[in-house]
Amino acid sequence: MAADGGSAPGDFKVGLLGHGTVGSAFSDLLEQRAEEIERFNGRRPVICGVLTRSRGSFEEILADADLLVELIGGIEPAREYLLSAMRAGKDVVSANKQLLSQYGEELFETARECGVRLRFEAAVAGAVPVVRVLEESLSATPIERIHGIVNGTTNFILSEMASGSSYAEALAEAQRSGYAEADPSDDVSGRDAAAKMAILARLAFGTPVHLDDVRYEGIEHLHADDLEYARELGLGLKLVGTAERRDGGLSVHVHPTFLYSGHPLSSITGSFNAVTVESGTITEITLSGPGAGGLQTASAVLGDVVSVMTGGARPPAPPLPLRLIEDVQSAYYLHLDVVDRPGVLASVMRVLGEREVSIRSVVQRGLGENARLVMVTHPVLESSLRVAVGEVGEFDFVRSPPRMIRVIEEEYA
Amino acid sequence: MAADGGSAPGDFKVGLLGHGTVGSAFSDLLEQRAEEIERFNGRRPVICGVLTRSRGSFEEILADADLLVELIGGIEPAREYLLSAMRAGKDVVSANKQLLSQYGEELFETARECGVRLRFEAAVAGAVPVVRVLEESLSATPIERIHGIVNGTTNFILSEMASGSSYAEALAEAQRSGYAEADPSDDVSGRDAAAKMAILARLAFGTPVHLDDVRYEGIEHLHADDLEYARELGLGLKLVGTAERRDGGLSVHVHPTFLYSGHPLSSITGSFNAVTVESGTITEITLSGPGAGGLQTASAVLGDVVSVMTGGARPPAPPLPLRLIEDVQSAYYLHLDVVDRPGVLASVMRVLGEREVSIRSVVQRGLGENARLVMVTHPVLESSLRVAVGEVGEFDFVRSPPRMIRVIEEEYA
Repeated sequence: MAADGGSAPGDFKVGLLGHGTVGSAFSDLLEQRAEEIERFNGRRPVICGVLTRSRGSFEEILADADLLVELIGGIEPAREYLLSAMRAGKDVVSANKQLLSQYGEELFETARECGVRLRFEAAVAGAVPVVRVLEESLSATPIERIHGIVNGTTNFILSEMASGSSYAEALAEAQRSGYAEADPSDDVSGRDAAAKMAILARLAFGTPVHLDDVRYEGIEHLHADDLEYARELGLGLKLVGTAERRDGGLSVHVHPTFLYSGHPLSSITGSFNAVTVESGTITEITLSGPGAGGLQTASAVLGDVVSVMTGGARPPAPPLPLRLIEDVQSAYYLHLDVVDRPGVLASVMRVLGEREVSIRSVVQRGLGENARLVMVTHPVLESSLRVAVGEVGEFDFVRSPPRMIRVIEEEYA
Repeated sequence: MAADGGSAPGDFKVGLLGHGTVGSAFSDLLEQRAEEIERFNGRRPVICGVLTRSRGSFEEILADADLLVELIGGIEPAREYLLSAMRAGKDVVSANKQLLSQYGEELFETARECGVRLRFEAAVAGAVPVVRVLEESLSATPIERIHGIVNGTTNFILSEMASGSSYAEALAEAQRSGYAEADPSDDVSGRDAAAKMAILARLAFGTPVHLDDVRYEGIEHLHADDLEYARELGLGLKLVGTAERRDGGLSVHVHPTFLYSGHPLSSITGSFNAVTVESGTITEITLSGPGAGGLQTASAVLGDVVSVMTGGARPPAPPLPLRLIEDVQSAYYLHLDVVDRPGVLASVMRVLGEREVSIRSVVQRGLGENARLVMVTHPVLESSLRVAVGEVGEFDFVRSPPRMIRVIEEEYA
């Protein structure tokens, strides 16, 4: 096999762990681009060994390689291989979001102690170079907030729902088109996006963030009519991950979120990913592109390899702990299904007012004997709103549990 | 002055040439971020000397500095200073788009010969990290095409015109808001965008591109009614720079350009900049953010300094010449002001058909005795279309010179 072929003195030897879809796309791409990379960097990258379940020896590959690329996925044995490689003084590249979001500190700490580079552009947002930009911007720019659409499956489903499909129809279409797996639970539950936001928050704010620190909510419970009413209010629905400084701490969460049409994430449709980085000095930049496909991921991995070859990477800095904050202020969309009789709106408003929930806009629509009451609040602490909504839900005129969805309130230029 | 203050052993000494708006924003930002940069990189950056027209000695600053930052602008003495610094073995950072677009090869060649780094993120698109992304993606990904909105002034003016302002009103508003200078000719002529596209094309395709190689056309001649008719055809108007591989060569140009609403650049409004990078392996990624303001530019310059400190940059590779192609295929918008009488459309269509210009959509609107004929062609060689439009313009029923504007035809997901 060519990928295991001989290397010449001076070649940059890459050991490849895992040879599935991404692994084979990566070794093909590396072969195609080797000449161009050599022209720019003076050394030719070659695959010096491939480890799969059925063949190859980790120890032999480790001994021979200048750098290891881990494309196995999952926790073990990927974690053990990466730790061993770094302890042996090798630079490593990984696309493993599960591992980085759950064992990130152990990996960063080991990289720092061993003075090696740990690169993982492909773990978040496919070929969109958000990891690199966050890493390199960090020391020049104090980041205030990042918002990300970091799961292509859910963005595809929500785009379909925005065109009138039900959740079930949209999911079926995503599965037919190859954008959702047979078991989509990791995507639609928001857990995949939460893992990516943990990684991005770690980078943007330099503080340890574990997947377990990220509150997340999925899209399974969304109704097509939430999207319809929201359109009347000028809002579009996305699954948005947010990491932001709040009250001297850090808040990281993933929720279905309404955006006003001027927001840079509101135009991201289909399976695309996008991340917006806000700071006082740069205002806001947005990076967008296709979410992870095999070729995009392979291309991001190869970019990491080149960046190690050229010295364009450093071992991670020690973390700077920030308190993680759970309860944050946000505007919200509320959807109430009520019996249409006099005094209903007044009663709802009284309870909300007592809990200091202030309303920005309301749409009420009669439906025979019933009515829908859809409103957007001004920013309010999530905990206060939950109490108020709980009280509203106890009125006998409320026909089904009230629904609340976060709204990003800022309107952009 | 603090910026000239003492440095300790181990500090990373930055010599600053120029102390105008960007220069002083840069030295303030560097001071604010010095501690954080030291935490990440182990060395503290300090300004070891500042050269202005009235004070400082270039030779003394050069002798003392680890790196020189050039924020003087213009060709001389900036060029001579950068060349001298590199010949003395110093890494350099510049935000000078004039210099890079006209003397880029001399600067790259010198950097390569002297083995030093030459960084210039701030020369294009302010804080949007497009230079870095192109540089680092280049060897991993064969880029096919870049499209850029790289001039905030003209994008602001076109956004105003899209809301109904005339060109003169929009320009006046841009001047009032600080988005256009008193003499806006460098911006509105397209020359500023052409300089930036020369720099981006050099990076994306690794081939020498001089400002003189870039064909450009400005926005001064645009009519508000072009924008209005185009809206009916589902098109929005932007000043777009394009650099793309064509027939084994490279085409680089800047033109007012119509975009369909699904195109990632179509949602970029106001003074924002954005660049879309297309390649077979990554499909397409888009980077957007505010165009150059003092603080954004300073932040990009500081990012370059940090990237040199961390070794994340290399001397440029030797160029790979590509033939520059002037005459390329594109779809076009045509606007004809005609006398409204039978046979006019037929005559126009006959001439276009003879020249093999094929029409995608037409809007005809009667205006008393006259009519407007607005159409979008399928892709056609610019030279062929110019011949055809010249012939159409000779008909006695054509009341004013026909107007043609490029259209980017691809519709995006």
